[in-house]
Amino acid sequence: MVRRKCIGSATLLGIASIFGFAKYPKEKLLVHHVFFWLKNPQSQADQQQLIAGLKTLTTIPTIRQIHLGVLASTEKRDVVDTSWDVSELMFFDDEAGQKTYQDHPIHQAFVKNNSHLWAKVLVYDSLDV
Amino acid sequence: MVRRKCIGSATLLGIASIFGFAKYPKEKLLVHHVFFWLKNPQSQADQQQLIAGLKTLTTIPTIRQIHLGVLASTEKRDVVDTSWDVSELMFFDDEAGQKTYQDHPIHQAFVKNNSHLWAKVLVYDSLDV
Repeated sequence: MVRRKCIGSATLLGIASIFGFAKYPKEKLLVHHVFFWLKNPQSQADQQQLIAGLKTLTTIPTIRQIHLGVLASTEKRDVVDTSWDVSELMFFDDEAGQKTYQDHPIHQAFVKNNSHLWAKVLVYDSLDV
Repeated sequence: MVRRKCIGSATLLGIASIFGFAKYPKEKLLVHHVFFWLKNPQSQADQQQLIAGLKTLTTIPTIRQIHLGVLASTEKRDVVDTSWDVSELMFFDDEAGQKTYQDHPIHQAFVKNNSHLWAKVLVYDSLDV
């Protein structure tokens, strides 16, 4: 027998908050943002290979959410770094989750198979306040 | 009469995906990540004032989600930049939403009232692929 849940609109909003839709999330997550500078930034093939490699990371269980990005066409201002090529933004529950990801065989295989593509990597790890 | 919704676990997972919990989101968002270096990084008061100022931004309607952060205690590696003090991560629907935020009076008031606190700002704008 399948037990079904009966919930109202307020509860649905509550669920939305739990799942991170709230504009100002109550959950405190670890934000891991990585920027890659390609050796051959003009090569679409290299960019696509790196993005394909990054997509293999999504199966690592401690990643709560992942966004893969390229440079946006926002206004060019002095404070905006537009020199990078590909970005990877991940959320983890905590620093232990991020460590598990770092040490995971899928992540290590990604680095081994793709590190020839990039000239520079820069990482920002922040903790929600 | 209040109409209540009866939903099963599969539907709950569907709702979670719509609300952005999916590990690999289907929505393509603009990711705006800003890092601040304080003039007085040892000053807890300055850090708290900047965070309080950043919290005023949450009411700007085009911000889909905001995370305010401080340096995480992840493993120190050469590729990790640990020199910054406070971070602000925002999601927008698109570049127009980010432009509306930049020009919004609340954002301009935030800059006017708090820019004396920081020595450097660095911005990364990426678009989900």
